[in-house]
Amino acid sequence: MSQAARPLRVAMIGYAFMGRAHSQGWRVAPRFFDLPLEPRMQVLVGRHADAAQAAADRLGWQEVETDWRRVLERDDVDLVDICTPGDTHAEIACAALEAGKHVLVEKPMANTLAEAETMAAAAEEAAARGVLSMVGFTYRRVPAVQLARQLVVEGRIGEVRQVRCQYLQDWLADAEAPLSWRTDKAKAGSGALGDIGAHIIDLTHFITGERVAGVSAMLETLVAERPVAESFDGLHGVGGSERGPVTVDDTAMFTARLASGAPAVFDATRFAWGRKNAIRIEVNGTTGSLAFDFEDMNVLEYYDASEPARTAGFRRILVTEPEHPYVASWWPAGHGLGYEHGFVHQAVDLVRAVAAGEQPTPSFADGLAVQRVLDAVERSSAARSVYTDIAAHAAAAQS
Amino acid sequence: MSQAARPLRVAMIGYAFMGRAHSQGWRVAPRFFDLPLEPRMQVLVGRHADAAQAAADRLGWQEVETDWRRVLERDDVDLVDICTPGDTHAEIACAALEAGKHVLVEKPMANTLAEAETMAAAAEEAAARGVLSMVGFTYRRVPAVQLARQLVVEGRIGEVRQVRCQYLQDWLADAEAPLSWRTDKAKAGSGALGDIGAHIIDLTHFITGERVAGVSAMLETLVAERPVAESFDGLHGVGGSERGPVTVDDTAMFTARLASGAPAVFDATRFAWGRKNAIRIEVNGTTGSLAFDFEDMNVLEYYDASEPARTAGFRRILVTEPEHPYVASWWPAGHGLGYEHGFVHQAVDLVRAVAAGEQPTPSFADGLAVQRVLDAVERSSAARSVYTDIAAHAAAAQS
Amino acid sequence: MSQAARPLRVAMIGYAFMGRAHSQGWRVAPRFFDLPLEPRMQVLVGRHADAAQAAADRLGWQEVETDWRRVLERDDVDLVDICTPGDTHAEIACAALEAGKHVLVEKPMANTLAEAETMAAAAEEAAARGVLSMVGFTYRRVPAVQLARQLVVEGRIGEVRQVRCQYLQDWLADAEAPLSWRTDKAKAGSGALGDIGAHIIDLTHFITGERVAGVSAMLETLVAERPVAESFDGLHGVGGSERGPVTVDDTAMFTARLASGAPAVFDATRFAWGRKNAIRIEVNGTTGSLAFDFEDMNVLEYYDASEPARTAGFRRILVTEPEHPYVASWWPAGHGLGYEHGFVHQAVDLVRAVAAGEQPTPSFADGLAVQRVLDAVERSSAARSVYTDIAAHAAAAQS
Amino acid sequence: MSQAARPLRVAMIGYAFMGRAHSQGWRVAPRFFDLPLEPRMQVLVGRHADAAQAAADRLGWQEVETDWRRVLERDDVDLVDICTPGDTHAEIACAALEAGKHVLVEKPMANTLAEAETMAAAAEEAAARGVLSMVGFTYRRVPAVQLARQLVVEGRIGEVRQVRCQYLQDWLADAEAPLSWRTDKAKAGSGALGDIGAHIIDLTHFITGERVAGVSAMLETLVAERPVAESFDGLHGVGGSERGPVTVDDTAMFTARLASGAPAVFDATRFAWGRKNAIRIEVNGTTGSLAFDFEDMNVLEYYDASEPARTAGFRRILVTEPEHPYVASWWPAGHGLGYEHGFVHQAVDLVRAVAAGEQPTPSFADGLAVQRVLDAVERSSAARSVYTDIAAHAAAAQS
Repeated sequence: MSQAARPLRVAMIGYAFMGRAHSQGWRVAPRFFDLPLEPRMQVLVGRHADAAQAAADRLGWQEVETDWRRVLERDDVDLVDICTPGDTHAEIACAALEAGKHVLVEKPMANTLAEAETMAAAAEEAAARGVLSMVGFTYRRVPAVQLARQLVVEGRIGEVRQVRCQYLQDWLADAEAPLSWRTDKAKAGSGALGDIGAHIIDLTHFITGERVAGVSAMLETLVAERPVAESFDGLHGVGGSERGPVTVDDTAMFTARLASGAPAVFDATRFAWGRKNAIRIEVNGTTGSLAFDFEDMNVLEYYDASEPARTAGFRRILVTEPEHPYVASWWPAGHGLGYEHGFVHQAVDLVRAVAAGEQPTPSFADGLAVQRVLDAVERSSAARSVYTDIAAHAAAAQS
Repeated sequence: MSQAARPLRVAMIGYAFMGRAHSQGWRVAPRFFDLPLEPRMQVLVGRHADAAQAAADRLGWQEVETDWRRVLERDDVDLVDICTPGDTHAEIACAALEAGKHVLVEKPMANTLAEAETMAAAAEEAAARGVLSMVGFTYRRVPAVQLARQLVVEGRIGEVRQVRCQYLQDWLADAEAPLSWRTDKAKAGSGALGDIGAHIIDLTHFITGERVAGVSAMLETLVAERPVAESFDGLHGVGGSERGPVTVDDTAMFTARLASGAPAVFDATRFAWGRKNAIRIEVNGTTGSLAFDFEDMNVLEYYDASEPARTAGFRRILVTEPEHPYVASWWPAGHGLGYEHGFVHQAVDLVRAVAAGEQPTPSFADGLAVQRVLDAVERSSAARSVYTDIAAHAAAAQS
Repeated sequence: MSQAARPLRVAMIGYAFMGRAHSQGWRVAPRFFDLPLEPRMQVLVGRHADAAQAAADRLGWQEVETDWRRVLERDDVDLVDICTPGDTHAEIACAALEAGKHVLVEKPMANTLAEAETMAAAAEEAAARGVLSMVGFTYRRVPAVQLARQLVVEGRIGEVRQVRCQYLQDWLADAEAPLSWRTDKAKAGSGALGDIGAHIIDLTHFITGERVAGVSAMLETLVAERPVAESFDGLHGVGGSERGPVTVDDTAMFTARLASGAPAVFDATRFAWGRKNAIRIEVNGTTGSLAFDFEDMNVLEYYDASEPARTAGFRRILVTEPEHPYVASWWPAGHGLGYEHGFVHQAVDLVRAVAAGEQPTPSFADGLAVQRVLDAVERSSAARSVYTDIAAHAAAAQS
Repeated sequence: MSQAARPLRVAMIGYAFMGRAHSQGWRVAPRFFDLPLEPRMQVLVGRHADAAQAAADRLGWQEVETDWRRVLERDDVDLVDICTPGDTHAEIACAALEAGKHVLVEKPMANTLAEAETMAAAAEEAAARGVLSMVGFTYRRVPAVQLARQLVVEGRIGEVRQVRCQYLQDWLADAEAPLSWRTDKAKAGSGALGDIGAHIIDLTHFITGERVAGVSAMLETLVAERPVAESFDGLHGVGGSERGPVTVDDTAMFTARLASGAPAVFDATRFAWGRKNAIRIEVNGTTGSLAFDFEDMNVLEYYDASEPARTAGFRRILVTEPEHPYVASWWPAGHGLGYEHGFVHQAVDLVRAVAAGEQPTPSFADGLAVQRVLDAVERSSAARSVYTDIAAHAAAAQS
């Protein structure tokens, strides 16, 4: 980053888990990557002035606002980074785009398909005016995932034949864990499906270059009632004796077809004791296979079927070489990256796209594509798992 | 085996892959296990006398017959071991039971649901006469799988909440591999579904103690045409220029519910490049998880959620201790077993059940339960994956 | 095995752990492999007639003798298979060779270097008369180990630069485990060194094709006193209140140089809690690496440094393909083998060598080479770990 | 970090690989951790003004100096962070301590034992004046390593019986990689030994709480001549046709005894093709074992021998829970950390120690302890690997 670089002034709305991660992205990106614009952590927005100021001090933002509408009016804000809960995304994002601000919105892009469609339309209209937008599916930016995509593009596994995906966590497996906004359909939209299932849908779209065309789904709420949180111990609620209903799914399993007809299977749960953040994707092609597990995130496994059977085997590629995506800017081989590096890479890619005036990915259209799958999953599950075609529905909705 | 042990005289029908494995079971079982009856490899049955005699010499059977009906008439045969293709199982098994011979039949028990129902009825009737029968799901007899079952029974993972199963192979992933009886619906009944999907259904039944109650399924033939085999190179066909249709599924993916309502997901394929015999089962319970992969068959992974999070983790239990099922009869800790040991254990368990006059497991009723799932999978797949209830259908069929 | 095959009549001396394993080798080999001679389990030798007869019945030997000298006089014995403790090997083996019997002797070949030298000389003399001999280092015959050797020979890792070996067990880690013959120098010769260290020395010799030329060693007895065994619970002693000294090493660590000068490091212990039979060998060459761990014995890991760094990684080769050593006679890909298959392969290789009149490997000369390393390790350890040259000593001994 | 926090003004000398890592530590620490002092990136020191200014801009340092002596005179510098090559450490560190500046020095603390002894003495003298010092063995600060230490302290593996360590890399395995300062004894002091062997010595000291008491060592230069670098491609030299000697070791293997007498084995190499940064430590205690591999750095493996053998196994503890060291300040469970987080933790621990006026660890005395082992390794290797006692030598040196 040369001293003469023009700034890209960012306003971030929300400062919880995702706000901390996005802040790290903006903070660190220019220290390791050559960027055409200098990201500036201009203003943090939070409803409560004191809490927002404390967060800004901690996270390193220069100023604070308490009303997100204010930052849309400011001339010294170029980009709005939306880290609030999903039910607020559509309103803020559309207003920001309307105000000429570039937008980064955390996933899930929206809580409903209707909101997502509105946002995608707004993004398309804004793009015509040079105002850009992007959704925060940061797992795309893990180097091993990028390498997987590259190998598919290069034909190293041939045509995609099958995909199997899992996203396994266990933080709700304790039936006495209390209710929270994440177990409330009104606020979260859905449960495991939208929270983590969305990631493996997006990763499938990204790695294969194909979209899910239809699904047959089974959603299930494994623990129907939980304690109502009476107090909070840090981030976590502490339950009392009162109980209330869980109104979202705990686990989402679905089979699917990609646009090419290739079958796929998805399994997202927050009840897999012992699995903490196991995002697993295996893609079988006509001439090879790829496998990834986020619990060993610096590794991509690759099987090259053109190798004689005698010496063929899944290769454990440690994706830490300078030849690997993003890695040359970091450390020597074998010195692996962690979770938040995806947010740094996200900042890098967004800054570069904005500077070049090019559409960053994943776009709101990409986010909408995921939302359509989530919607079809819910409709299929409600209709005895009957195969539910996304394209037809999407076409009908657009006509 | 004391010298005074009464013999259990076995007739084995068929002598290909499964015949070799079953022979090893009968041969080795009395050398390592104390058995109440002495299994005797009395007679091998094959249609072609010369080939059958060569097989009997190689495998160590005392005599040969060319017509399976003959062995049913012989007084010196106590048990008929059926290793022929699936389309012959029902006829032979029913006749053998009728003739008062105990029966062991390789899986799949039958090619159709109707055959399986006939066999189960015959087995029930025979059992009343003291004539016993069993299906050859030998993967149940891997020590790590037995340990998994024990831990479930002992409540070490609490109530079963979810199951995820995969059976991944790659031996048909080469689109130029020629047609064979396994790609022919008339002979094989189905493809990946019945060949390998049947195993993970049975393992789910066994480990959880619950049966699959309904499914939503997607079957797919990934390579629709293959070369017709012109010649044979050992066991393997060599394709010519002519092509013919594949009439079975190549991959079977389905979601399911167990009797308790617990969701499950299944994925069986012969197209997963790099996976050779990856039978993977993960069971999440209310207080722990279990995971198994046949490609590392002497290991069971166990997560005990009652352990404090600070020191909890999946334990890699090397299932080679004398305390583990079957192991005390073999080798010291760490000296693992292989694939065919399951056939030895099968022989041991069957001999003991026969001696005790007790029903061995898995019974023909267990085999029928698997067949019902296979049937429901095919019906669901044909009906746009709609959730298909097995119990209702089974009840209707029985009424 | 054709019916016309000439027999190879075996007498086995001893019938404990190794006798059971050798019996399985003789029993099973002709059922899966085409052999030029038919191994016949002729006579089992044990000092106590009743116990020997019970073992012969269980293991399937036709006759029993109580004095090993008797079988040397019998015309119907072609080969003597010595499974007794190490302190008896030299006498029996030399007498058997003298009597014109082929000999298979379990490892360790001998308890002392002097014995081993005598045996090697006897073997060389016998070979001139067409009488053959072999040492039972069966881990050489794990398919993954054979593949490792093949890849080295084919130059797939270039020149050998470094070797690191571990043999980790934990069956003596409990300080209350009682004394046994294995903790008694008079009977066992040494502790971890000769029992398991010998295996990794032989594997290094085999895989690299080079012998250890010198060592710098540290032997240690970690638990100096143990309970005296008062009774026996099956194979295992049960200790009482009396204690006695452990007179062998518990752990053996040594650095070494191969004949080429390449450095190597060895680590053998029976005190590594949680490691049951972890025989681990890693060989780094100028153009690649190989790694093996017996706890996952059907796998060889291979790194090919000629692959571009971007897609290079250790390949997990599942050594279960028909192209792999020994495997075509067994099961389809992915259906792994176990511990005792090494004894089957040993029988196969020995029968073939005898039929061909060719020297089987490992020869007594190979066994002597290992014994020389064991001896040098003890001398180095006694001399403050000073580097101790094997070749010079061996040359001096031979002059 | 409250706004009222007093600053801790840092001057960093050197800005290559380690300078980038240290900068990230200072930058990020206050954003995730509550610190009693606010680290301020005050001044970066580099010999060439332009390059230093560019580095300061990139890395975020406020000012630049070209002579390290200048910063010792400045009142606005509280701490000197030394990231230069090892041959300069002693002079700078001693001068800084003399000037009353706290000191952080990258490892290796020094290139010679004499320098290290001088530094340790200076540190001890400075500490009496309240001036603190620390060595940058950051691998101690990987959460899994900290957890290993905690479990040892808590007695979860009992008494330490054995240690095995490896540090395997492959970046010099290509014989055509050119000469650099790291292959030059004058600049680097030693090769694999001091560069990476030092880390596993320090980790052994840290995890076991015991120091190495003596060693028997074998150093080897595997590639004796390499191309002289003619030009540079980024960080890497590009070799020409001229060749020169490698004057350092390529691989260091040694056995050792800890203070308690427990045997240990060490193996450090930059020639292990396929291993990129495999820092592996296994500790066997009287009641359990621990194992760590940096290539899977968020995992600690733990075997608890008090668990019944039937369900015992190495647990794969994903060290990403809030209960784990440092983790509560970062991300939810399963969202792993990377290499540079160790530098953040180092900054945190150092800031806290300085604020509290307490000795941070590892101290210069700890660094000297490592240096004594390095020295003994070199002496043993030069004396035919004879066991070389560190304590005696150290005592003699101190008398």
